[in-house]
Amino acid sequence: MTHEPQRALADIRIRVQRDLTSYLASQTSYLSDIGSELVPVAEAINSFLLDGGKRLRPLFAYCGYLASGGEDDESVIAAAASLELLQACALIHDDLMDASDTRRGRPSIHRWFEGIHQNEELLGSAARYGSAAAILLGDLALVWSDQMLHKSGITESALMRSLAVHDEMRVELMAGQFLDIHEQGLATQSVARSLKIARYKSGKYTIERPLHFGASLAIENESQRQKYVAIFSEFGLPLGEAFQLRDDLLGVFGDSAVTGKPAGDDLREGKRTVLMAMTADRANESQDLIIAKNFGSKTLTHEGIEELRQVIIDTGARSHVEELIEKLSSTAIDALNRDEINSHSRALLLELASTAVHRTL
Amino acid sequence: MTHEPQRALADIRIRVQRDLTSYLASQTSYLSDIGSELVPVAEAINSFLLDGGKRLRPLFAYCGYLASGGEDDESVIAAAASLELLQACALIHDDLMDASDTRRGRPSIHRWFEGIHQNEELLGSAARYGSAAAILLGDLALVWSDQMLHKSGITESALMRSLAVHDEMRVELMAGQFLDIHEQGLATQSVARSLKIARYKSGKYTIERPLHFGASLAIENESQRQKYVAIFSEFGLPLGEAFQLRDDLLGVFGDSAVTGKPAGDDLREGKRTVLMAMTADRANESQDLIIAKNFGSKTLTHEGIEELRQVIIDTGARSHVEELIEKLSSTAIDALNRDEINSHSRALLLELASTAVHRTL
Repeated sequence: MTHEPQRALADIRIRVQRDLTSYLASQTSYLSDIGSELVPVAEAINSFLLDGGKRLRPLFAYCGYLASGGEDDESVIAAAASLELLQACALIHDDLMDASDTRRGRPSIHRWFEGIHQNEELLGSAARYGSAAAILLGDLALVWSDQMLHKSGITESALMRSLAVHDEMRVELMAGQFLDIHEQGLATQSVARSLKIARYKSGKYTIERPLHFGASLAIENESQRQKYVAIFSEFGLPLGEAFQLRDDLLGVFGDSAVTGKPAGDDLREGKRTVLMAMTADRANESQDLIIAKNFGSKTLTHEGIEELRQVIIDTGARSHVEELIEKLSSTAIDALNRDEINSHSRALLLELASTAVHRTL
Repeated sequence: MTHEPQRALADIRIRVQRDLTSYLASQTSYLSDIGSELVPVAEAINSFLLDGGKRLRPLFAYCGYLASGGEDDESVIAAAASLELLQACALIHDDLMDASDTRRGRPSIHRWFEGIHQNEELLGSAARYGSAAAILLGDLALVWSDQMLHKSGITESALMRSLAVHDEMRVELMAGQFLDIHEQGLATQSVARSLKIARYKSGKYTIERPLHFGASLAIENESQRQKYVAIFSEFGLPLGEAFQLRDDLLGVFGDSAVTGKPAGDDLREGKRTVLMAMTADRANESQDLIIAKNFGSKTLTHEGIEELRQVIIDTGARSHVEELIEKLSSTAIDALNRDEINSHSRALLLELASTAVHRTL
């Protein structure tokens, strides 16, 4: 393994990709043995999973493993890679719940199967077929993530240690997702509630828990493990919030050519983010009117998007969120200044932290 | 444990219920610690899971465990009970995919959350809120089933042995579900295809795999375990098909006061079952017309239901399916006449087989 952190991360990413490719190949052949009707299911998940994604959760898991003293190990790479299938479940179901048409510039899974229904001139409603396929494909991805972890080849004791944190992470994810959909129905926005949702739905699940998962794979001794779990929470929780805040900014200001989502998608959808809650808190009467007219409007025009963006900037919400990201990142980084984290692992985690919060995608 | 098989099964059912109740109580408190907004989620799953259900999968799993030499064990009861949470996931997502309004005479989960959205006068679409909540609650049930298994208290080696069959069962279930929704879109019906769907979606998942799961919990020795796995396949596969055929009959002829589903629900929905494929195969021209007019008609009247039922009877499809159920059951029962299955376990499995194929619900 190289000592230059960017190259080291790229190397881990390649090995994660290799393991996902080979696991999905085995499942593709398993499914087509059951029936040729299942080939499109395998194709859809292959294309969804292998054509994009930053692999942040596997990377945090593996770096957490290395930072807590684990030795480079192919089995642990496979175990970490399994988190990407859990993420596939979350994204497939999320796109369906949000009725999003695209993901990374391509049709979302329910739209993809709607297209198959139309092309094959199947009977019944194409939309219902698309939804059903997306529900099942998400479920399948969730089960596959489990199976890939179980078959990763890690030791029995490592697997046993990892199950508790793995389960808790998944319950938190689903709880956070529910808080999020509930939030969209409330009459008012709230910075505190949106921060909590960001924490559960995204922060803990993307960074803190994968690091804990990595520590559980590396360390047998309970009290030793708890020491790393605490450090990773100190690092991962603020970083996770910063990650989600970056997501909020990208959902409004992101370049659609890079994000693969239509410009201003979150604005059209009326997504209740920390950024929007801060904007609402700070808006004056005329800005309130602009928000009321445009935010969540299904017919939002390019002009409306620009008006909203200007309000978010003018209220100071955008720059406040940027400052918050910097503050949270710096709190996170400080947590790594511990003897328990060796310099190689610290460099990896710092590089990864930077990838998570300074991304454009 | 009593020696009278009905009472013994009732006793296992009570212990399964007890463990589900206590697991869900702990999860309810976990969720409400995250946020009071999650209390309805906990209430919904509690009411969905604890107010009904035959607990067939836990019963088959536990009887499979006893029949392969396992000793009565509270931890194994909890492990078997976890399958009921997997079934909750399957039912919640199935009802959403089928757009079913009711389950066991009560609103289905997506309808239930639609009602909450309306009562609390939340913003946005109630239908979309209901769907999203059902997707997430199904996902949560799937994760909980895993967690309940992992925390059941069974030995590490028993857990390790059980994971492979548990994963395979879940992949098969999702594959079967996909075959089913795909089948609904095809231009023609086919007995062979419908039998295959019944096998994956229901037969293997309800009977064969829970028995294998039970064997994996009981037997450490690989070749000894394979012996029981083979016997349980011989017993469970035909019985599973008989179980699904009974389901087909109940979907058409079942008493709605007992099934908790509107009369003729499967006919209104146009569900492609083995029963309907056999009816289509045997129908003459005038019967074809009745099928074309009524089957899958959203506005199907009570008269239309009666006409269709008569066609299913007159073509001989109903009696053929009844005969097939008897034949499959008898093949299944024969498989238990082996020295490997002691008389107490055989009596339990026979009683359970009878519950599965002679049910009215």
